[in-house]
Amino acid sequence: MSSDLFERLAARLGPKGYSTDPEVLAPHLQEWRGRYQGVTPFMTMPASTEEVADIVRMCAAARVSITPQGGNTGLVGGQTPNGEVLLSTKRMNRIRALDVDNDSLVAEAGVVLTAVQQAAAESNRLFPLSLASEGTATIGGLISTNAGGVHVLRYGMMRDLVLGIEAVLPDGRVFSGLKSLRKDNTGYDLKQLFIGAEGTLGLVTAASLKLFARPRAHEVALVATATPGAALQLLHHMKAETGAVAAFEIMNRLSVDLVVKNVPDRRDPLPGAPYLVLIEFESFDAEGLRETILGALAGALDKGFGANALLAENAGQARDFWRIREDISAGHKPEGAQVNHDVSVPVSKTPDFLQRANAAMEAACPGVRIVAFGHMGDGNFHYTAIQPIGMARDAFPGSALTQTIYEIASALNGSISAEHGIGVARTSDLARFKDPESMALMRALKQAIDPHRIMNPRALIA
Amino acid sequence: MSSDLFERLAARLGPKGYSTDPEVLAPHLQEWRGRYQGVTPFMTMPASTEEVADIVRMCAAARVSITPQGGNTGLVGGQTPNGEVLLSTKRMNRIRALDVDNDSLVAEAGVVLTAVQQAAAESNRLFPLSLASEGTATIGGLISTNAGGVHVLRYGMMRDLVLGIEAVLPDGRVFSGLKSLRKDNTGYDLKQLFIGAEGTLGLVTAASLKLFARPRAHEVALVATATPGAALQLLHHMKAETGAVAAFEIMNRLSVDLVVKNVPDRRDPLPGAPYLVLIEFESFDAEGLRETILGALAGALDKGFGANALLAENAGQARDFWRIREDISAGHKPEGAQVNHDVSVPVSKTPDFLQRANAAMEAACPGVRIVAFGHMGDGNFHYTAIQPIGMARDAFPGSALTQTIYEIASALNGSISAEHGIGVARTSDLARFKDPESMALMRALKQAIDPHRIMNPRALIA
Repeated sequence: MSSDLFERLAARLGPKGYSTDPEVLAPHLQEWRGRYQGVTPFMTMPASTEEVADIVRMCAAARVSITPQGGNTGLVGGQTPNGEVLLSTKRMNRIRALDVDNDSLVAEAGVVLTAVQQAAAESNRLFPLSLASEGTATIGGLISTNAGGVHVLRYGMMRDLVLGIEAVLPDGRVFSGLKSLRKDNTGYDLKQLFIGAEGTLGLVTAASLKLFARPRAHEVALVATATPGAALQLLHHMKAETGAVAAFEIMNRLSVDLVVKNVPDRRDPLPGAPYLVLIEFESFDAEGLRETILGALAGALDKGFGANALLAENAGQARDFWRIREDISAGHKPEGAQVNHDVSVPVSKTPDFLQRANAAMEAACPGVRIVAFGHMGDGNFHYTAIQPIGMARDAFPGSALTQTIYEIASALNGSISAEHGIGVARTSDLARFKDPESMALMRALKQAIDPHRIMNPRALIA
Repeated sequence: MSSDLFERLAARLGPKGYSTDPEVLAPHLQEWRGRYQGVTPFMTMPASTEEVADIVRMCAAARVSITPQGGNTGLVGGQTPNGEVLLSTKRMNRIRALDVDNDSLVAEAGVVLTAVQQAAAESNRLFPLSLASEGTATIGGLISTNAGGVHVLRYGMMRDLVLGIEAVLPDGRVFSGLKSLRKDNTGYDLKQLFIGAEGTLGLVTAASLKLFARPRAHEVALVATATPGAALQLLHHMKAETGAVAAFEIMNRLSVDLVVKNVPDRRDPLPGAPYLVLIEFESFDAEGLRETILGALAGALDKGFGANALLAENAGQARDFWRIREDISAGHKPEGAQVNHDVSVPVSKTPDFLQRANAAMEAACPGVRIVAFGHMGDGNFHYTAIQPIGMARDAFPGSALTQTIYEIASALNGSISAEHGIGVARTSDLARFKDPESMALMRALKQAIDPHRIMNPRALIA
């Protein structure tokens, strides 16, 4: 039966539209960190919404499931097939429209994030989403995972940047919600169903995205602080004094030390500080911005929110400050067995979280090394526990530590996955940490929209 | 059977928690403009989420439907019962928590908007939602209708201001989504289901809301422009030059003339201008704001985006400028038969919309008078067609004009209800102007979550 299906799909899509060649498939089956290895009998590469709709209709009729894939940069295995038909959006890479006077742009699912940023810039507009994988990650995947990144504090998550969505439903019908309106109260906001749903309720084929006026001035500061509590006070002080905070990132001492140790040509601009805070500012009015920031920083040091502060003198130095933050993952990767987490808590609870988590880790595994960094302005930590020096790799109690971290985040009304999603990696954690009413509602939605579990059946709701 | 139910409800709720007294019920059954007159056998007034859950459970078991009601300020009849049990949230009026360091506040459904604004202000924070009925409208209703208002341009709709929701589901279970997180990618974003759903998928009992740092400086300008196209250029110019535009409202000549004619003590600061644009600016840095705005306005006049501009000299004058805008509804109400619309189009299409709509109205009804005003920065017009002077009231072809307006908005990829919602007033228009796939998806959601149609059964999805 499946071979019939594949013949019909091949006939519909033509030679450019599918592959079963192991060499072509290989990069789509290998997760980039090597944590997941996929398998698929058939990869489709549709070039249009109509082709996606036909693929889904044919697969649904044959009760064959589909794994959708964008840039293959996900961190939780949601994009890796395990026997399903693979649907790559890579040929759907057109920017369909750019409406400068509406501050909006319509991109197909396979358009890479940097291409959207660039198209916006060429029209003197800003598309603010920015994250490490932006040269590879695609709009469809970024919507399906509700991507975050470094500018959430000012511009929100991907959910906040989407005006409209076109998606193919699990039976092959097309949901044409590609409106570009700021206001539309005509019923349930159906596009929300597809944002952050990890491809389980339909396949996003295109989206209308919000653009913004382009700030003229950018500044980057680095502040040495003694405690997360001081960093929290610094956050509110700088927001209120400048109104221009676009990113507020914290890095603990070890995270910086390991960058200096393991990444060539990196130096620590504020050696010895228990925590470094990187603050990015943006403004439409270049005049006076540096003075405003310098005044606010001086006030912060006076009040004890920081011990020392540097304001980047030029774009090169600003880049250098950011590089420390961006290289943290590379810095601690070589340090042995480790477990990574992407948790969030209310911003007010960030000091509490760090204090409790650090204490619990040390109690459970004396000598454990903690790398804690991330988007403190959003209450989001990337929190990694690394094996003690000298411990045997397999003696490290990684999964027990993970459960403890999730328990601490949950006790503070936090989230076990702030921006990376659930995928296949965290479905059992989800069932454990999400309340039963929410799980029941999610299952009811899945059942109502995809009763035959055609769309990404192993992800999110297993 | 119902009388059994009412006895059990009365026993559960106690004397403060229900009423069948016509005098007590009267203000809840009368829509404020007198367009809808409700009827209910039993009004419940729960004081807690547990009481709401019990009411819904008992009603659901008896298959008796419920109409939820907040401040009773809705414009589309969604809050007026027609035989259903009425559930007023007016006793659920506590602000449960305010977390300054998380910029968030938890309010129960019955809290009035001004109370939230004030609680935020007392903590040196801003809750930015602002609209005419803010002294009466409640948080539950504002969420259920995804309220808009004058600050959408800068802060978004109510949907954008909600961090978490607690709601009672149609079977009486409680959805406890009252998180106060900026980032949470653990599955479908279930709170979205209840925002803008007009009480048809569950009853919002409390919400966690976003607060913002409080801008220190406010300025209000009034600009005379010749055409909507010039106003559109003015919008983008002022956004890019100041980065501080918080509201951008347009008023056509007649809308201002009728304020001057029908509202005591109002004068027109820019007589003769075909269109007046009111721009509100806000900034964290008072220093230099007026100079920036004056420079931007001078540039706009140079480029022909405006013929004249006034920047309010003080708070009193700013208030006077706003009063003209706020009194427009009162200004044209006495002018005879009229049909009102609340439509949106892409911001870039606003000049197109006005030109097409005005021409079509005049063609269909020579001498018709058009009041067009609203949130141009969001592409949202409140567009009213008023009978020609001297025409008999019942000769005015109001509903035909409405259909034409909706057709023009739809042809421009717009919406027939930008912020007021569907309620019972526009269910047939919705079925006509919404695409079949969206209608089917909405019905599937209603069926999955409220199969017995317990919650607000005549609203939105009839």
